[in-house]
Amino acid sequence: MHEAIRWEGADDGALLLLDQTRLPGEEVWLRCTTVEDVWQAIKRLSVRGAPAIGVSAAYGVCLAARDGADAALAACDYLATSRPTAVNLFWALERMRLAILASRPGSQPLDSHLLCEAQAIHTEDAAQCAAIGRHGAEAIAPLLQGRSILTHCNTGALATGGDGTALAVMFALAAAGSDPHVFVDETRPLLQGARLTAWELMQRGVRCTLICDSMAAQVMREGRVGAVIVGADRIAANGDSANKIGTYALAIVANWHKVPFYVAAPATTFDMTLDSGDAIPIEERGAEEITEPFGKRTAPEGVPVYNPAFDVTPAELIAGIITERGVMAPGEVRERLGT
Amino acid sequence: MHEAIRWEGADDGALLLLDQTRLPGEEVWLRCTTVEDVWQAIKRLSVRGAPAIGVSAAYGVCLAARDGADAALAACDYLATSRPTAVNLFWALERMRLAILASRPGSQPLDSHLLCEAQAIHTEDAAQCAAIGRHGAEAIAPLLQGRSILTHCNTGALATGGDGTALAVMFALAAAGSDPHVFVDETRPLLQGARLTAWELMQRGVRCTLICDSMAAQVMREGRVGAVIVGADRIAANGDSANKIGTYALAIVANWHKVPFYVAAPATTFDMTLDSGDAIPIEERGAEEITEPFGKRTAPEGVPVYNPAFDVTPAELIAGIITERGVMAPGEVRERLGT
Repeated sequence: MHEAIRWEGADDGALLLLDQTRLPGEEVWLRCTTVEDVWQAIKRLSVRGAPAIGVSAAYGVCLAARDGADAALAACDYLATSRPTAVNLFWALERMRLAILASRPGSQPLDSHLLCEAQAIHTEDAAQCAAIGRHGAEAIAPLLQGRSILTHCNTGALATGGDGTALAVMFALAAAGSDPHVFVDETRPLLQGARLTAWELMQRGVRCTLICDSMAAQVMREGRVGAVIVGADRIAANGDSANKIGTYALAIVANWHKVPFYVAAPATTFDMTLDSGDAIPIEERGAEEITEPFGKRTAPEGVPVYNPAFDVTPAELIAGIITERGVMAPGEVRERLGT
Repeated sequence: MHEAIRWEGADDGALLLLDQTRLPGEEVWLRCTTVEDVWQAIKRLSVRGAPAIGVSAAYGVCLAARDGADAALAACDYLATSRPTAVNLFWALERMRLAILASRPGSQPLDSHLLCEAQAIHTEDAAQCAAIGRHGAEAIAPLLQGRSILTHCNTGALATGGDGTALAVMFALAAAGSDPHVFVDETRPLLQGARLTAWELMQRGVRCTLICDSMAAQVMREGRVGAVIVGADRIAANGDSANKIGTYALAIVANWHKVPFYVAAPATTFDMTLDSGDAIPIEERGAEEITEPFGKRTAPEGVPVYNPAFDVTPAELIAGIITERGVMAPGEVRERLGT
């Protein structure tokens, strides 16, 4: 497994993050010792992926707790401003906030108490990844019949506290000996597919082929795709799923080709307070991600740019949502995950 | 107009091509004095766009004709190997071949005769562009009602011997005072949209916004697109249209959003020998276009890549084809353009 998040040392330790902006060229670990370090790492995508953001933020609160409960509570509010779309971030921060409030003077020291909570979030996420992989492999295997899986963005060990969400399904299929092949969307603008997913799959010996996002429809037309599996950053109660920009287009072309489209995500990705995906806030990012891909200016100076980082795939395009509790149709979300 | 193809001098002159691989950063003109120069310029995309390839190849035959009719005929065969998909190339070369065969010793010298023919192809293409612009503007204007046009790849003055195909429609709308706004797909892998279309539109004062290819569906979902217009590299007798990779996916997402999808192309782009698009040869290009965008390696070493340069949009997804003879439904192609 390519661990991307590590806690180094004891209560007075530091958060180590594998800097995903430098992959696959360099494996550089960032050492975060303040909550500001963690905020910056999330903001500039050194750590990304909805579950991984949640885990990292939880550890960030631990760093702030050295200055007391008030500082830890302030850190929860501060880290919530780093990115708006992935709900796992807010879920993890709420859990840490409750842990701060539940901490009693005289019992376990606050920083030690919070580190236990953050580590629990981390290990629970890893267990959820493993369960998603098992349930997903069982559901997807019969669909393939020699055809490939197609995926978008990165949803592996780099994106989670464990083995991944959508990629965990592919790792589970590989572990079961079914030798899956994966078409990897490069995922413009930041190329998480080309840089991270292709790298993880190759490191784990899973066969893959890199394509541009715009080629997915062609590969489906050639009859080479048995299923699409993607991750999610926030899923509404009706099953509408926000994920990396391009996911929505991919779901439409999968629907056109009658290729089943699956979303893989832990229960922490569901936002049952939202009736539909219309209310999910969509982050817009800087123009330079499009106009200056990786340091080289390719578009004319001054060109207006629209750069939404996510889109929402409506439930009607989703065959099933793979969670640690099993695979469910979007229409079953309310019943099976509702409070 | 941003002329991209010029003949310099008289019969013993040279072909000047604006090197499109260097735009928008630098405006560099290539001076081609041999047929090999022209073959290389087409192959490495210094000149691209189906009509522009045809015009350039015609001038390439003129350069070879200095060594006689046999050399000119050999040049026709040679230039036909430069790229496989755009049929305008083969059409222009066939026209030059007939001109060589029709040339008689004792009348006009061969090189002079062929230069006239190449210049006729060039000026006819410019006239066709103008007519496409007129017909297209008339058809598209009522669809917009304040919404934008969305386009893919580059289909402007850089891609033709005139004002363009799909872009000619936008220039005609602008000239008529309707102030169109255009969403420009960046068009991976070679970014012809970001590098060339945005540049042409900005130079001509047409409002535009650059997006990644994967964002087109999101922009349509927001209700901001009144019509899609793209070019074509080869159109079969049933209306199936080959164009830059990503066009097919775009047509599917336009269909999902009930946004009318138009193809703009001169009659020289139609291949009436093909009953459907299944028989159109699709060029595959090198992996490095995807793994090393603009000189920076972004994907892991050794990753397998699939890089089809074109795809085929089935006629059922096309609302109309805008030609110099007017706008026709795909089902009308056989009747209106058949021999």
